[in-house]
Amino acid sequence: MAYDPNNIFARILRGEIPNSTVYEDAHVLAFKDIRPQAKVHVLVIPKGAYVSAQDFGARASEAEIAAMARAISKIAQDMDIAESGYRLIANTGGHGHQEVPHYHVHILGGQPLGRMLSLP
Amino acid sequence: MAYDPNNIFARILRGEIPNSTVYEDAHVLAFKDIRPQAKVHVLVIPKGAYVSAQDFGARASEAEIAAMARAISKIAQDMDIAESGYRLIANTGGHGHQEVPHYHVHILGGQPLGRMLSLP
Repeated sequence: MAYDPNNIFARILRGEIPNSTVYEDAHVLAFKDIRPQAKVHVLVIPKGAYVSAQDFGARASEAEIAAMARAISKIAQDMDIAESGYRLIANTGGHGHQEVPHYHVHILGGQPLGRMLSLP
Repeated sequence: MAYDPNNIFARILRGEIPNSTVYEDAHVLAFKDIRPQAKVHVLVIPKGAYVSAQDFGARASEAEIAAMARAISKIAQDMDIAESGYRLIANTGGHGHQEVPHYHVHILGGQPLGRMLSLP
């Protein structure tokens, strides 16, 4: 699947659409989900053009991959959910219900979440 | 939270409990979940002693972090779900309903998954 440079996260990265940034570094941008599914709901995306977790895991550099994991831990600390806990979700492709074709990790927390529910 | 060396994944890593390995390298082990939530349900764990995503993101080396992401993409290819899609979930701490205190990523796929459901 080719990367679509007009997907909404690409447009956010280019500054064409506003966002509520909570974290940014050389490789990563994180912002609040506009339709939060929990009290804390942050989306963490790489700045590079990767369609999905599949694409990111195959093509991204070690520095880019490490930056995502480091950013998630920092954001959880900053949002005060590192101790109480949270859930990370990355939906990939059709079966995963991926909605935006730019790799993104959801951080959900700030309240007890349900058990892991993945089936229809 | 201190790492408990007797958690079930530590025991699997030491070979004390059998598992259905689907992938292994210097940093990563992956095996089938014994209570699958979807047609494909694989658990991917680092070999290092990390309690959670929080701990892993803060303390793991770049090589260990990259190995997890690379392994996930390889496993998805091997399990033939890279094209059809999948969902990655990492539950962290109490609010995330983390059940085993060794960092692990669930890969769920092989069928259409439901929408992302995280609330009770």
